[in-house]
Amino acid sequence: MESAGATLAAAQGRPVCVIGLGLIGGSLLRAATDAGRDAWGASASTTTAEKAAADGYDVAGSVDEALARAATEDALVVLAVPLTALDDVLAVVAREAPGCRLTDVTSVKGPVAEAVARRAPATRFVGGHPMTGTEFSGWDAGSLQLFHEKVWVVATEDDADLEVWVDVAALALACGSVVVPAAVDEHDLAVARISHLPHLFAAVLAAVGADGGELALALAAGSFTDGTRVAGTRPELTAAMTEGNRSALLASLDDALGRLGAARGSLASTGGLLATLRAGHDGRTALDGARTARREERIDLEGTPAEFLESMRELGRTGGRIIGWTAEALDAADEALGVLEG
Amino acid sequence: MESAGATLAAAQGRPVCVIGLGLIGGSLLRAATDAGRDAWGASASTTTAEKAAADGYDVAGSVDEALARAATEDALVVLAVPLTALDDVLAVVAREAPGCRLTDVTSVKGPVAEAVARRAPATRFVGGHPMTGTEFSGWDAGSLQLFHEKVWVVATEDDADLEVWVDVAALALACGSVVVPAAVDEHDLAVARISHLPHLFAAVLAAVGADGGELALALAAGSFTDGTRVAGTRPELTAAMTEGNRSALLASLDDALGRLGAARGSLASTGGLLATLRAGHDGRTALDGARTARREERIDLEGTPAEFLESMRELGRTGGRIIGWTAEALDAADEALGVLEG
Repeated sequence: MESAGATLAAAQGRPVCVIGLGLIGGSLLRAATDAGRDAWGASASTTTAEKAAADGYDVAGSVDEALARAATEDALVVLAVPLTALDDVLAVVAREAPGCRLTDVTSVKGPVAEAVARRAPATRFVGGHPMTGTEFSGWDAGSLQLFHEKVWVVATEDDADLEVWVDVAALALACGSVVVPAAVDEHDLAVARISHLPHLFAAVLAAVGADGGELALALAAGSFTDGTRVAGTRPELTAAMTEGNRSALLASLDDALGRLGAARGSLASTGGLLATLRAGHDGRTALDGARTARREERIDLEGTPAEFLESMRELGRTGGRIIGWTAEALDAADEALGVLEG
Repeated sequence: MESAGATLAAAQGRPVCVIGLGLIGGSLLRAATDAGRDAWGASASTTTAEKAAADGYDVAGSVDEALARAATEDALVVLAVPLTALDDVLAVVAREAPGCRLTDVTSVKGPVAEAVARRAPATRFVGGHPMTGTEFSGWDAGSLQLFHEKVWVVATEDDADLEVWVDVAALALACGSVVVPAAVDEHDLAVARISHLPHLFAAVLAAVGADGGELALALAAGSFTDGTRVAGTRPELTAAMTEGNRSALLASLDDALGRLGAARGSLASTGGLLATLRAGHDGRTALDGARTARREERIDLEGTPAEFLESMRELGRTGGRIIGWTAEALDAADEALGVLEG
C-alpha cells in the first residue's frame, strides 16, 4: 500500500477508459478529457464511435483495443453500458484487462457487483452511480456539464479496494460532481424509492392521462407535465434500469401500493385524503430541508482503510456529501508527486 | 336576447367582482384590473383584504358589500374560494346578488354546479376552471401572469346562459388564457386523470421517498424532484380539490391501481416492466403530440345558442382551444358599442 499522498496523486492523474459512449459514457469522455485526463473511449456501435471521433475525442478502434490499452496504462476502466450488455463486455474485460481498476455508471449496484464477481473476478472493482441524466439518449445527447453539481455515488463496502475507491471519487470530483459514499444494498434500496419508483409512476400516470383522450391532454398542466416527464425516456433504457433493481423496487412498490390502497379506501368511504396528502407534504418538506441543510465535507485519507471506508459510509448514510479533498490531503499529494517526478 | 355584437361588447367591458383573494382569486383581481376592467375583490380574511388594498387594488369592506355592488353594477361575480367554503359564500350570494352573473375558478365543476343549484338557484351560473397554479398559496403568491397562456375551461352545457358563457370566456381571454369549452362531467373525468391523480401520486411518491431516510433524500434527482413537486402544496388545498372530485378520481385511481398491480405482477414473475413503460412512453408522446399539433381557433357567436354551445363543446372534446374572437365578431361588438354609446 502506497502512502495516502501517493494514492491521491496517482488517482488525480489516472488515465480513463470509457466503454460505451451513450448519454452517460459520452458525457464522461467529454468531461474527463476536459478535466485534463488522458481519456479514451470505445463503443460497440460504429456510428457512435465515428460521431465521438468526429467531435475530436480519442476513440479506440474496438472495445478490445480500448481495454488492452487500459491494461498497459493502468487506467481506470468505466463501464457505461446498459445492464443488459454488461455480461458481454465483462467477458472482454476478463480477456484484455483481467486485473484492471474497474468501475461502472449503472443505476443499480448489487447486480453489477455480482456480474463482475462472476465474469471478471480478478478486476479491482468499485461500483459507481452518477445520479444524472435526461430523457434523451445517445452520444449526441451527452454534454460536458452532465455531471456538474450532481451526486455521484461511490460504492463503499468494507472490503473495497481503497486505491480504486479514491480513483473513482477523484474522477467524480474532476467531472464536477459531489460524492456520496453508500453501501451497495443501501444504495439499491434508496434509488428504488427515489428514482425507479418515480419512473414507474410517471409511466402509469402518462398512460392513465392519455386514456382520457384529447380533452384530457389539452387540459394537462404542470402536475401532469412534471409527473410524467421521465416517461419520455426510451422504455428499453428505463426497463433495463428498473428491472435490474427488481427486489428493491418490489419493496418500494409495495410500500406505494399500500399507501395508494389506503387512500383509495379512505376516499371511497369517508372521502378523506388528508392523511395521505399530509404524509406527502411532510416528505416533500423533508426533501427541501435536506437540500438546504446539506452537510458538505472535504476529506483526507486518514486512518486504516477499514476505518476510512466505515466513516465514509456513515457520512453518506446521514445525508453528507464529499465536495473535495482537504488542503492537507492535496499538499501530501503534491509532495508525493514531487518525489515521484523528482 | 341581445345581438351577438352587443353580447360580446358588454362582456368585454363587464365589471368583475372576485370573492376570495388567495393564489387564484388574488391573481385574477390583478389580471382583470390590468386588463382595464372595473374590478374589485373581497376576502373573508382581514389580513388578506388589507394586503390587497395596500397593493393598490379595489377591495370591498366585506364579502356582502362586494356582492351588493356586483348586483348594482351587473358585474360578473367570480367565486375563488375553496370548495369547502363554497356553501357559506353562496348563501351570501343568494342574499346580496340573487340574480347575478356567476362563475367560479374551482378545479371541479359538477359539485360546484350542484351547490349553486341548491344554494343560489336564481343566479346565472356558468362554471370555469383556469388550469394554473403553483405549489404556493395566498395573496402574496399571486401574480398578474398566472393565467398567461394557460388553459381556462368554461363549462359548456346545453342549457348554459349564453351571455354569461361569453362573459366568462371574455374574462379568461382578457387575462391572457386560452379557452377550452367542456361539458361538466367530461371536465371532471379529465382533470381527475391529469391533475387530481398526479397530486395523489406526488404525495405517495414523496412519502415513500422520505421513508428511505437521509441517504435516499441525498440521492434524489430529477425524477423524484419533478414527480413530487406538487406534494409541496398545502395539503388542505389539495384535499379540498381532490376530495371534491371523488367519483371521477376513484375511477382514475382504479385505472392506475390496475396498471400498477399488473406491473407488480410482471416484475415479480418475469421481471418485465416493458409493457407498462411502453404504454407510459406512448402516453407522454401523445401529450407532446397534442401540444405541437394544437388546433387554435378564433370564434364568433353565430348560430342559435344550442348550436353554438354544441359546436364549442365539440371543439374542446377534440383538443381545440379558443384564442380569441374573429375580426367579424369584434367589428360587430364595436358597432354595437357605437350604437350603445352614440
